[in-house]
Amino acid sequence: MSADASDTYEALLDRYRRLSNVDEAMGVLNWDQQVTMPEGGTPARSKQLSTLSSIRHELLVADETGELLADLDAAEDDLEDEQSAVVREIRDEYERAVDVPGDLIEELSALQSENHETWQHAKAEDDFDHFAPALERLRDLHAERAEYVDPEKSPYEVLFDDSERYLSIDRVEEIFDRLREELVPLIEEIRTEGRDLPTPFEGTFDVDEQMALSRDVLDYLGYDWDRGRLDTSAHPFTFGNQFDSRVTTRFDPADPLGALLSTVHEFGHATYNLGLRQDAYGTPLGQPRSSGVHESQSRFWENHVGRTRAFWEGFLPTFEEHFPQAEGVSVDEVYAAINRIYPNNLIRVEADELTYHLHIILRTEVGRAFVEGDLGVEEIPTAWNDRMEAYLGVRPKTDTEGCLQDIHWSYRFANFHSYTIGSVLAAQLDAAMREDLDRDVDALVRRGEFEPLHEWMTENVHAHGQRYATDELVERATGEPLTADYFLDYVDEKFRTLYDL
Amino acid sequence: MSADASDTYEALLDRYRRLSNVDEAMGVLNWDQQVTMPEGGTPARSKQLSTLSSIRHELLVADETGELLADLDAAEDDLEDEQSAVVREIRDEYERAVDVPGDLIEELSALQSENHETWQHAKAEDDFDHFAPALERLRDLHAERAEYVDPEKSPYEVLFDDSERYLSIDRVEEIFDRLREELVPLIEEIRTEGRDLPTPFEGTFDVDEQMALSRDVLDYLGYDWDRGRLDTSAHPFTFGNQFDSRVTTRFDPADPLGALLSTVHEFGHATYNLGLRQDAYGTPLGQPRSSGVHESQSRFWENHVGRTRAFWEGFLPTFEEHFPQAEGVSVDEVYAAINRIYPNNLIRVEADELTYHLHIILRTEVGRAFVEGDLGVEEIPTAWNDRMEAYLGVRPKTDTEGCLQDIHWSYRFANFHSYTIGSVLAAQLDAAMREDLDRDVDALVRRGEFEPLHEWMTENVHAHGQRYATDELVERATGEPLTADYFLDYVDEKFRTLYDL
Repeated sequence: MSADASDTYEALLDRYRRLSNVDEAMGVLNWDQQVTMPEGGTPARSKQLSTLSSIRHELLVADETGELLADLDAAEDDLEDEQSAVVREIRDEYERAVDVPGDLIEELSALQSENHETWQHAKAEDDFDHFAPALERLRDLHAERAEYVDPEKSPYEVLFDDSERYLSIDRVEEIFDRLREELVPLIEEIRTEGRDLPTPFEGTFDVDEQMALSRDVLDYLGYDWDRGRLDTSAHPFTFGNQFDSRVTTRFDPADPLGALLSTVHEFGHATYNLGLRQDAYGTPLGQPRSSGVHESQSRFWENHVGRTRAFWEGFLPTFEEHFPQAEGVSVDEVYAAINRIYPNNLIRVEADELTYHLHIILRTEVGRAFVEGDLGVEEIPTAWNDRMEAYLGVRPKTDTEGCLQDIHWSYRFANFHSYTIGSVLAAQLDAAMREDLDRDVDALVRRGEFEPLHEWMTENVHAHGQRYATDELVERATGEPLTADYFLDYVDEKFRTLYDL
Repeated sequence: MSADASDTYEALLDRYRRLSNVDEAMGVLNWDQQVTMPEGGTPARSKQLSTLSSIRHELLVADETGELLADLDAAEDDLEDEQSAVVREIRDEYERAVDVPGDLIEELSALQSENHETWQHAKAEDDFDHFAPALERLRDLHAERAEYVDPEKSPYEVLFDDSERYLSIDRVEEIFDRLREELVPLIEEIRTEGRDLPTPFEGTFDVDEQMALSRDVLDYLGYDWDRGRLDTSAHPFTFGNQFDSRVTTRFDPADPLGALLSTVHEFGHATYNLGLRQDAYGTPLGQPRSSGVHESQSRFWENHVGRTRAFWEGFLPTFEEHFPQAEGVSVDEVYAAINRIYPNNLIRVEADELTYHLHIILRTEVGRAFVEGDLGVEEIPTAWNDRMEAYLGVRPKTDTEGCLQDIHWSYRFANFHSYTIGSVLAAQLDAAMREDLDRDVDALVRRGEFEPLHEWMTENVHAHGQRYATDELVERATGEPLTADYFLDYVDEKFRTLYDL
């Protein structure tokens, strides 16, 4: 590459690194707020986050960014492949932000904070009417922003792009249609014809002991404590980058398996961050591809490792060390307990591996119809409940356990699909990995030898960062585009066997 | 004030609030690094802090800041007193930064990071020659910066101004001279003629129990847990602002009193932050006056409360609850133990209330002579040891327990005096408070009724933020300028009684 192009490229990268460091700082402030900050700190923390967020926006849309990108446009042929990818990612982010007025971003951000409280109140009081005007204002502001980002697309599509820039919404909806068509009858079959599964654990399980168990499972899976830590928070989440990726969990004294699998889920997210290239820190090559790809990593470790019989054959003794009441419980009983289906459950965050996706599909359908104007705000509760009945055979009695249950719509729409994309991709990656590794993966899991799994995921997913668009990443890793086939085969095989169908 | 001046003032304030929020974010990142961050996170954290620090500098010295200040210069008469104070503070900070090249600041910051490791190595290996070139480079860069900040002053004076902008260095050196003249013979008298003090506690003291005791003492003193928390760190420190001020401590299993008093010390720092005006968050009126004034608060609570007989008359039963081995130990014995003088101690951070200041005076003398060129780098160890011998009658055998013991010179000079200014001011404030309150302060302390003390300090010190220059703040609170009289009277009375001189 010419000396000029090289200088320009380095200048753009420096600029982006600054912006990324501001992002990372916001990540620390957010982790601190959720894990360690005393409650009284909220007013100051909001101001700190809002300042950093506006500095970040200004760095991104500054004239200088545009000029560097324009110069590189002319020097396109001089760039190496990795450099082209970096420029592609920065350009895309720049173009999607540059025309959006700063005032609108601030207004949106203020409304999101305000809506949080409105939603909390509405949920606590089961008062959808209290939340409805907030939902409409949020939709309107997002539509206004979307018009600036891409006037050719519907506001919902722009919102979809925010989290899954390189998957087509039509392709994702096709996948969702297939899931709905196959999962609804499967769940119905389980409900009506499946055998009863045992519930081996009863009583209470000390939360300090659960914490120790969560630490042990992280050890067992190969968590790098020198670059991580485990804490508790109201909602489990993962924070971080390739140098420092921390997980949180939470405990239910009645259910030691829930926290354990939640920890394993967050561990999966952390493996992605920790597998990113350290030399590419602060650049698109050292950042995760998308929410959906991130979720594939958490779902892989949660479902394709943590919920397998092979895993428990190796891990049950450790579980028993912490909870002697588990002695005498068989691997099969644990396996059944952690894979049990609850068709009557109304709450997404408590849903099992099958019904979960119908919770998601419902939300994407209702959300899209509302944002695109096909559904009035006052029609949301009924639309929600009708779908719950159609897909899962149960109808919420209140909006608190219906359309008010999730926080997500207090700040944006089109942000649920990543969870299901994650599960679908996890199954596809699992199949490709088993094919590639040419080893007995179940035997590795049984023996607690996870290194080959980590290596495959790092090589095929983590280490690429944003080098490839999502489709290309998936094709390179698995040999084909994203497809529901593997997930559907996996759940069909697993749950028909488990429920004796 | 005219509408124009008012707009300009608000614009300046908005700008400063952004800068302050970046500062606060850096504070969170620093707290996290010292308390919660896994070690592997260091490379990324350094980059984040360096980005935020350069963004902060750019916000401060931006043309816009200068223009707003120039406009307000013309509108000086339109400003109210508080507004004038705000403009004075921002102008001063701006003028001391605007001519310093950004590259120099980055170079200095990079050298400071690098020197940290050089110093650690030199201290571990007792190898002053390894550290000497680092000291010289640091002195040279600071001198270069000082030339930009104020070419009329010596580099040392500029460094002094960085932490104590509104105290004259001559006045502080006069105070230090008096302390040296009076403390050296007093310590010598204690060493040669003082009675032997009892050491009531022996054995080991469980650190979890010490942590519980530290929590209890914070409760007892009135710490607002809704705006604070207690953790451990390698070096105890206090972080925060009026919404969130956290303290850390550390434990020595052989010495339960050390951690306790360290916690009380940090509590004092936290009271200052928590007493700042919440409505002035992010502006000079909501920020602490200076390092020396901050230290007066920690020293007040540590020495004038925590080391008094009255305090232990109230608190000893709580101590005994945690450590039953203390039963039977009298208040007098504890009082003697926490006030014992160790003339042979070589280490500043382990020093007692008297010898501590000779450690500080030594550092200010050697530091100033080195920075001003009166002492070559290779002469530092001998200059240090000679003074230790002259002031305390002991001579370090190694540089590790001599001039390499403190981290401070790895990043700057003229940063030790605040500790002694703090003690001097604490005694002066204590005397003024006793006069003002017109109540038996010892009786309040004995009963654990600290609210009147908090109120007095908040009203006379905290709530002013940077409203007044230090001299004016001290005069308003105590009726006279900063003086060594009260501190010297206090230690003379206390230690002559204690040591029966």
